[in-house]
Amino acid sequence: MIVCKFGGTSVANAEQIKKVANIVKANPARKIIAVSAPGKRTDDDIKVTDLLIDLADSALHNIDVELKLNRVIERYADIAAELGLDDIIIKIIEADLRERLAADQSEKAQFIDSIKASGEDNNAKLIAAYFSSIGMPAKYISPKEGLIVNDLPERTFALPETYDNLKKLANVEEIIVFPGFFGYTKAGVLRTFDRGGSDITGSILASAVGAELYENFTDVDCVFSANPKVVNCPMEIKEITYREMRELSYAGFSVFHDEALMPVYKQGIPVNIKNTNNPAAPGTRIVPKRPATGSPVTGIATDSGFSILYVSKYLMNREVGFGRRLLQIIEEENISYEHTPSGLDDISVIMRSHQLNDEVEARIMKRVKEELQAEDVHFRHDFSMVVIVGEGMRHNTGLAARAATAISNTGANIEMINQGSSEVSLVFGVLSQYENQILKALYEEFFAHTTV
Amino acid sequence: MIVCKFGGTSVANAEQIKKVANIVKANPARKIIAVSAPGKRTDDDIKVTDLLIDLADSALHNIDVELKLNRVIERYADIAAELGLDDIIIKIIEADLRERLAADQSEKAQFIDSIKASGEDNNAKLIAAYFSSIGMPAKYISPKEGLIVNDLPERTFALPETYDNLKKLANVEEIIVFPGFFGYTKAGVLRTFDRGGSDITGSILASAVGAELYENFTDVDCVFSANPKVVNCPMEIKEITYREMRELSYAGFSVFHDEALMPVYKQGIPVNIKNTNNPAAPGTRIVPKRPATGSPVTGIATDSGFSILYVSKYLMNREVGFGRRLLQIIEEENISYEHTPSGLDDISVIMRSHQLNDEVEARIMKRVKEELQAEDVHFRHDFSMVVIVGEGMRHNTGLAARAATAISNTGANIEMINQGSSEVSLVFGVLSQYENQILKALYEEFFAHTTV
Repeated sequence: MIVCKFGGTSVANAEQIKKVANIVKANPARKIIAVSAPGKRTDDDIKVTDLLIDLADSALHNIDVELKLNRVIERYADIAAELGLDDIIIKIIEADLRERLAADQSEKAQFIDSIKASGEDNNAKLIAAYFSSIGMPAKYISPKEGLIVNDLPERTFALPETYDNLKKLANVEEIIVFPGFFGYTKAGVLRTFDRGGSDITGSILASAVGAELYENFTDVDCVFSANPKVVNCPMEIKEITYREMRELSYAGFSVFHDEALMPVYKQGIPVNIKNTNNPAAPGTRIVPKRPATGSPVTGIATDSGFSILYVSKYLMNREVGFGRRLLQIIEEENISYEHTPSGLDDISVIMRSHQLNDEVEARIMKRVKEELQAEDVHFRHDFSMVVIVGEGMRHNTGLAARAATAISNTGANIEMINQGSSEVSLVFGVLSQYENQILKALYEEFFAHTTV
Repeated sequence: MIVCKFGGTSVANAEQIKKVANIVKANPARKIIAVSAPGKRTDDDIKVTDLLIDLADSALHNIDVELKLNRVIERYADIAAELGLDDIIIKIIEADLRERLAADQSEKAQFIDSIKASGEDNNAKLIAAYFSSIGMPAKYISPKEGLIVNDLPERTFALPETYDNLKKLANVEEIIVFPGFFGYTKAGVLRTFDRGGSDITGSILASAVGAELYENFTDVDCVFSANPKVVNCPMEIKEITYREMRELSYAGFSVFHDEALMPVYKQGIPVNIKNTNNPAAPGTRIVPKRPATGSPVTGIATDSGFSILYVSKYLMNREVGFGRRLLQIIEEENISYEHTPSGLDDISVIMRSHQLNDEVEARIMKRVKEELQAEDVHFRHDFSMVVIVGEGMRHNTGLAARAATAISNTGANIEMINQGSSEVSLVFGVLSQYENQILKALYEEFFAHTTV
């Protein structure tokens, strides 16, 4: 059995949904599909989720509600008409939206979540109706049937019983169309996933039914070995391990949200990232293990927006617990950090800059100076991380040297190097102004002369 | 005013003590000297401190006490005779030792400390007597005059009031001869410093009197830029900053114990490491700041005996506090660590192997698996750290690349790189079997073609 997920652009309009039907029809193993809300049809289009957020906001302020509601319904009506569906489905969707809008607004976030999630929910109903109308028996299934999530205030995740609850879906005769992006708490409150929402739903379904494969349909042919906006025609990645994918997604490889991999990772279910617009392309397979290839490097990613907290104190390394107490201060400020390279008398904490502001920085510096009696404490900003990823790196003598040389040849100073854990990745910290230049240089070093 | 410290080999016999007198006489600014116990006269000699430890042990077991006592007294008697001193000083020393031996033995460590420290204490008395006998007015001063240390169980260090107490020594007319290695608690109990003891005493004295210079006399001409047992005729270091010295001393540069730098570091007092046997040589100066030289690298040190704890867990970096909790476990096992390189889903903790054994490792692995739900937890051993040190490295683009390339060319795999704090040092982790080969290769890369 295969579980498929179709992202927003794959279900943005009638033409796209017809492609989805053809893809599902082409392989009888495709029995369960998770769908997003209709995405952008063109680059300057507004996706339904954004229309819904706007609608929720209007409802909370009680302004233009009917107008905003109609904009949403029209999107579905256009799709339904082009798909040759009768008006019943639109009546169902309108009734559903009016019911959500009439609900209690006292818990604002909860109200917005409910309106937002209707995008996936109603699109699933519409797609199930379309499949049935063309002779593909299909059934909309609500997350109410067992996708149980935790309560506030933690980030949303599926509770363990979800997997037992949804196991039964494997026995449903019809093709299941399941809305992505949300679940319900034990008390029946709808909660959406934070990011990459439909990817997570598909991954949960694949894990629950023990799928042989999780196909993740999007609008690109594959994952590239480097950002195609910076590197000209980068190599396609045919096969990549979970670990590699995760390290790459850390730094800007946004094709697949890393948290979404967790449920399939635990089961060892392979993932195939494919293109709805070009389903014949093999896409990129994410697998637990893969055979060694000629190249030690699978991909190179870069990301900007990092800051470095530098702390130095004479004889620091004689103080048991210095590093731990420093990290405790960072943690108490609710800041997550990425790396902590250290010398003998100094340690740096590398974190994403968006968590900082002048006030937070001043408070951290004050605490570190006072509580740890550090001598020099300061922040530096505008750094990028460059991540070189590959399972083959572990046994490749000289790879760090090649990478460092390629970076230095651009004229950039290497501000940080972090290697030493799994060696599936090697991280360099550089000033952001050099980021693209370095990506090009590293791509040239590790890929330009490779043939597959 | 200059404070001098003379180490064990500098005061091992009459001939050496005459050299000390000449050195002190040569510069009237040399007003305070800290001295060690008589060290080895030849490579297979036993130093007085070791004779004293043996004596203390005999006393505790009440066996051969007179025999062992005589061995110690004979050493002093030989020195005194050759220096032409009359018998009084030996009577003083013998009376002192007998008094120490007759003391309460119920606190064993305290009893041993008292016997051990007599080596420095009595040598200071003897040297002061010799100076006076040749027309250099000198005065033995006991640490009782104000070198106050903390109580057990912490490592011994001088309490802040020490510096005020000893300020008055600046006004003493005579040359002060002060025994190194120990101080007294507020309750009057003698405690020795843990390592590099006389270096610390000299450093404390220099700081207390606000010396213009702290001269540390030992038996080598200078600090070398690399271990002369591995690298053939390495370059001498003429000037080095405190920070550089400290980073180098971390990995096997044992000329000067790093903790001893603390008191002079705080005052910015320069240190001159000189050779008692060749006082004309300029030695190595340790200074707060130094002008840039042609070479970005000041020294390269290596040290073996490191282990790596590897921990991996999928989505580790999403868990706030994972690293901090891991370090807490390590801390609770009383283990100090050196570096913590991290990937996205893995972190390594690098520590000195002598702190580990099978039982400790098993307990740590069990705790990390159970308390942090880590997926893979294991130890690896037999690593060396290679530390490249230099203030000039900070602005030297390409240095990491050159170092990594030189290491890789030896065939060694770079297991860890840690750069990113002050950039006064760059640390590589490698398998110990490659250590010497790598030191030679790095020396070749950074020093062989340099002229000063």
